[in-house]
Amino acid sequence: MSTSALSHIAPSARLGANTTIGAFCVIEDDVSIGEGCQIGHHVVIHAGTTIGDHVRIDDHTTIGKQPMRSPNSAVTSDKVQPPSQIGGRCLIGASAVLYAGCVLGEKVLVADLATIREAVTVGDFTIIGRGVAVENRCTIGRYCKLETNVYLTAYSVLEDRVFVAPGVLTSNDNYIGRSEERFNHFKGITVRRGGRLGVGAVVLPGKEIAPDGVVAAGAVLTHNAEEKTIYAGVPAAPFRAVPPEQWLENQGWDEST
Amino acid sequence: MSTSALSHIAPSARLGANTTIGAFCVIEDDVSIGEGCQIGHHVVIHAGTTIGDHVRIDDHTTIGKQPMRSPNSAVTSDKVQPPSQIGGRCLIGASAVLYAGCVLGEKVLVADLATIREAVTVGDFTIIGRGVAVENRCTIGRYCKLETNVYLTAYSVLEDRVFVAPGVLTSNDNYIGRSEERFNHFKGITVRRGGRLGVGAVVLPGKEIAPDGVVAAGAVLTHNAEEKTIYAGVPAAPFRAVPPEQWLENQGWDEST
Amino acid sequence: MSTSALSHIAPSARLGANTTIGAFCVIEDDVSIGEGCQIGHHVVIHAGTTIGDHVRIDDHTTIGKQPMRSPNSAVTSDKVQPPSQIGGRCLIGASAVLYAGCVLGEKVLVADLATIREAVTVGDFTIIGRGVAVENRCTIGRYCKLETNVYLTAYSVLEDRVFVAPGVLTSNDNYIGRSEERFNHFKGITVRRGGRLGVGAVVLPGKEIAPDGVVAAGAVLTHNAEEKTIYAGVPAAPFRAVPPEQWLENQGWDEST
Repeated sequence: MSTSALSHIAPSARLGANTTIGAFCVIEDDVSIGEGCQIGHHVVIHAGTTIGDHVRIDDHTTIGKQPMRSPNSAVTSDKVQPPSQIGGRCLIGASAVLYAGCVLGEKVLVADLATIREAVTVGDFTIIGRGVAVENRCTIGRYCKLETNVYLTAYSVLEDRVFVAPGVLTSNDNYIGRSEERFNHFKGITVRRGGRLGVGAVVLPGKEIAPDGVVAAGAVLTHNAEEKTIYAGVPAAPFRAVPPEQWLENQGWDEST
Repeated sequence: MSTSALSHIAPSARLGANTTIGAFCVIEDDVSIGEGCQIGHHVVIHAGTTIGDHVRIDDHTTIGKQPMRSPNSAVTSDKVQPPSQIGGRCLIGASAVLYAGCVLGEKVLVADLATIREAVTVGDFTIIGRGVAVENRCTIGRYCKLETNVYLTAYSVLEDRVFVAPGVLTSNDNYIGRSEERFNHFKGITVRRGGRLGVGAVVLPGKEIAPDGVVAAGAVLTHNAEEKTIYAGVPAAPFRAVPPEQWLENQGWDEST
Repeated sequence: MSTSALSHIAPSARLGANTTIGAFCVIEDDVSIGEGCQIGHHVVIHAGTTIGDHVRIDDHTTIGKQPMRSPNSAVTSDKVQPPSQIGGRCLIGASAVLYAGCVLGEKVLVADLATIREAVTVGDFTIIGRGVAVENRCTIGRYCKLETNVYLTAYSVLEDRVFVAPGVLTSNDNYIGRSEERFNHFKGITVRRGGRLGVGAVVLPGKEIAPDGVVAAGAVLTHNAEEKTIYAGVPAAPFRAVPPEQWLENQGWDEST
């Protein structure tokens, strides 16, 4: 027996040729899945989600979850989000949670236990690592890499070729949850093209890392970071220049493919 | 076909009016679920769990797990825990794990991938963020906010209106797992009413943050924190006073609702 | 009705006496499960996995996942991994993900939401805590303890009796994802027998902690750590000697059982 016979697939869902569905999946109304996809076991795909060709989705992952609105939440709105869109040749791990209103480009990898909230876009070839949490209203460019357990706060922007090492933390609230004034000042972080954050770095609300800027491992960035400069320490101070062989322009990377 | 027809619901389970159950759920013996609840797909609710009215539980969440006792664990006991109790209008995310022996008040939000261990109580209106781990034997007050990936060690106490920013870490073992003496000294952290911990802060075993005390982003707190004072650095030292407009008493918050 | 009747168990799978299977599990071809095991609900066990006697596996866990190979990944290879092997009396939590090509000894505890990648071995009696991520090609000894949310980078070695406190971060890439040169220098961390890492510590690529060495809470280790010495600060410097009552040789621990 095909395992897909054990799944619940809405009659209105469309599945491309050579797409396989594991056991106990739930494919809701009006979901569209392209050709040659491999859907694991216990995958839930909520109504209206669009998935490109040759996408792999592993066990226990949910795609298209609607946000939950707490009476006590600062940045989640009540409105119903549009369906998720997953580009061709994406790889999505096990027990990941992708919200309605997130849009992934092509060949994006989302690893196990990662979560991507609503109103987020992720560019082609980007890797969202194991356990990474991308909050709502973030924009992430192409060829970025967010490694294990990175936390990207709401309203953040990562341009292309940004590298974020494991366990990097960010915040968007300078008021630490206190005073009505804070609602006027929520601001995520911005990392310009080729910026890099080292393992365990912390970036405070609204801070910007200029192109090819680097925040060293364990540093706490409390001011903006200048171009091609490494910042280190708690709080972070300029440490030295980024060596030219590490500049993005000197990598010889072809971005046309 | 209703998706609940695809679920395994014990005959002894009681479901309130207008409660919906997704596909492939497991509702074990003597579970009680109130009115108007929305239970997602692949939700597991273990025997005896009590759930109030208008609760939402998302896909792949487990409620009522019994602890696992390792031969090598310091603080987990062998005894069978009583069923979980979930108050009315709680929101519980996807792939969360709530243990038997945890008790949630009303309107608590538990986000995706959070875990709450046995012998824990969580007060009304509190938010347990995405990926938060609350260890066993913790007490958490009302209107608290534990943001993404916070780790709260066993035997900790958070009073009302405590705010814990993303990635805050805590410990209860000053002996780092060595010497029999440590078993006499396990002590969680205590955060008094209105205390706040900034992004990536670390709080050492047994330390106490006085009312409206603040530990700054990236600080490592090795001593107790005084009232209405901000501590910063590694190790943390007094940095400045909390501005009066951030004192809890000056927020004008109505806690009666 | 037995819940296992609701599961999908391949005819070629072998189940020992007194082993129970929850609802909606998927047990693929040629899986072998020993006697007296307790398998929860929604557990997925991929083809060929071998599981010893008296193993407990909780809800929503996946065992035997094949790696995903991104065009943009530095350290994941394309080859198909051999099946997982889980030793007798292991305890495996909920929503954990164990890859094909991982080998667990006996009485290992893997807590909720932990992930263990391919080409990893874990020794007897070791605890892999809640949310821990063990990357590929790591070797972990006996009687180790990796506490909540530890991140162990690829190519790391932990010898016996190593203790890693919550939220410890590691890295194997000194070039932070830039320059082709980095592919020649990937190197995980090494912690020798009895080494200990405090809560929130960060260890840089290739660093080694000598036997009974300690990295204090919140420290960033940028050089190797000497035997029986505590390192603290950012960057970490020698702080004081480990007190003799904490030396491994003075614990009186019997490792024969």
